[in-house]
Order: sequence, then structure tokens, then C-alpha cells
Amino acid sequence: MKINSFSRLYIHTLKDIYNAEQQLTEALPKMAKAASTPELQQAFEEHLEETKGQIDRLDSLFDNLDFSPTGETCEAMKGLIEEGEEIINNGSMPDEVRDAGLIAAAQKVEHYEIASYGTAVYYAKLFNHDEAVDLLQETLNEEKNADAKLNDVAINQVNQEAVQGEDFEPSRTSR
Amino acid sequence: MKINSFSRLYIHTLKDIYNAEQQLTEALPKMAKAASTPELQQAFEEHLEETKGQIDRLDSLFDNLDFSPTGETCEAMKGLIEEGEEIINNGSMPDEVRDAGLIAAAQKVEHYEIASYGTAVYYAKLFNHDEAVDLLQETLNEEKNADAKLNDVAINQVNQEAVQGEDFEPSRTSR
Repeated sequence: MKINSFSRLYIHTLKDIYNAEQQLTEALPKMAKAASTPELQQAFEEHLEETKGQIDRLDSLFDNLDFSPTGETCEAMKGLIEEGEEIINNGSMPDEVRDAGLIAAAQKVEHYEIASYGTAVYYAKLFNHDEAVDLLQETLNEEKNADAKLNDVAINQVNQEAVQGEDFEPSRTSR
Repeated sequence: MKINSFSRLYIHTLKDIYNAEQQLTEALPKMAKAASTPELQQAFEEHLEETKGQIDRLDSLFDNLDFSPTGETCEAMKGLIEEGEEIINNGSMPDEVRDAGLIAAAQKVEHYEIASYGTAVYYAKLFNHDEAVDLLQETLNEEKNADAKLNDVAINQVNQEAVQGEDFEPSRTSR
């Protein structure tokens, strides 16, 4: 899409987010399947449902625009998902270490989305599109909650178990 | 790299960040060159210098590890930079709209780095690597400041100018 105006930049931003969410609906089931900790599995499954609702919200937003939501590929999300797959496909990992890696990958995704929706909300405000502001802000809040939930699972459970028994003291083992 | 332990996941995280920063030192000069608003140009140039300092910090951290900082490609940063290049290479953009797009792309990069360093700081804490915690936390603070600075330039200047004269009312122009 030619971005020859600020309105077009706004549309471009929304299309990019739309594609990112689509990609995520394909990645999250794989992440849930790869996770061992039940709370993490559940967090991924819940976020999958949330993501589908976020796509519905974008669909209803695009219903009022003269543009289709499709047609862009979000290259950043492609890369982010590849990082998650690198963890999933790393055969030799203990379960809790894989879970820690999955959480880190998922938090990068959430931060990406927080930045994207943050920009989109702000653009919608500049155009005084109150309904779009509300829809996008609702999703932005969900992404922040998803990130916080992953943090909880990491801190209270997964990472404590992952580090257990490992005594990694680089300053003593190296030159 | 085989990630068969939590220590290896920590090293993997640091190598990924190292490559991401290297990629960024190549992208930031292009973003500075493409920017029209002097404050934005300056923000990119300052962050380039900061990024070089962050790489030095990682080098000194790796000096105490039995691993080289190189050997990983950060796929997410590749995608993020591609998004920035899409803006740079979009020929038909008014200057202030391009600047708005560059800010959005750069804020996504900052958020990615905030997530990465957030994870790295936390891993370093679990291993009680106090020196690494301090080095990584210092960079994490810089990334947060860089994001806030971009926000300021967007809100106080670029986006106000970009939206000026545009009256985008989708609800009236569509079916």
C-alpha cells in the first residue's frame, strides 16, 4: 500500500496489526502444545481466545473504513514467531527450560503488540475516532495483562524450577 | 547453539541481544538520514551512540563467559528493521508522515529491546551475577528513556504536523 498521507499510515498500522494477530492465532496453539507447566499452557490457550476476540474487534473497526484488513505481512511478527519456533524445535531442552524460553518469546510478542496498539490508539485519537480509540485501547489493556500474567508464571514457578540445581558462575570458570 | 540448560538459555538470550544491537547500529544511520525533523534526527543519532556503548557493555559481560557473543541471528530484529525500511523506501510520503512512521518503527524496536533486556536482567538475577545485573539494567533504563524520548518527539511535534489538514472520517466515507 502506498503511504502518501497520515490516514494511510494509520490504515497501514492497522493492517500490520491485523496480520500480526492472524499469525499469532497459528503460533499460539503450537506454543500451548510445547508448554509443560499447566499454568503456562492455560495462559497460551486463554490468550488464543483473547486474540480471536481482538481480530473481531479489528474486523468491526475495518467495517467502517474503505479498506480491507488484509494485504500486509507483518515481518516483525514473522521474526518473533521464528524465535518461538527455535525454542519449540530445540530437541534437547529440559521441560522447565523450554517453558522459560517460551515465556521469553511470548513476552517479546506482547511487547511488540503493546508498541503497535499504543501507536494505533494514538493515531485514532488524533483523528478523533472515538469508537476506534475504545476498541484499540481495550485490546491494548489485554496485551498488557497477558504480559503481566506471563511474568507471574515465570517468577512464581517456571524460572525458579528452571534454574534449580544449576550453579553457573562464569567468573570462576573463565579466564 | 544447543539450549540444554538454563545457563545455555541465558547465553542464548545474550547472544540474541548482541546480534540485535549489531543490526541496529547499521539501521539507525539510515533512519537518521531519512528523518526530516531535526529533533528526530538527533534522537536517532544519540541512540546510535548509546547502542555502541551497549555493545561495549555486552562485550565486557561476555569477557567473563566461556562463550563468544556472536553466532546468533536475531530474526525478530531483522523483521523490525524491515518494517523501518518499508517506511524509508516508500517514495511518495510527505516528510512529516515519514517521520511519524519512523517513530512508530523505532518504538517497536525499543519495546522489543525492553522485553529482551527485561528477561536478561531477570535471568542474571537468578544466577546472582550482580555485575551482569548492573550492566544489563543500565541498558534497560537507556532503552526505556529512548522510547520515552521518541514519544515526546511524536506527541509534541511530528504527529501534530503529520495529521494537520487531514480530515479522515471513515464512518462518513464508507458504506
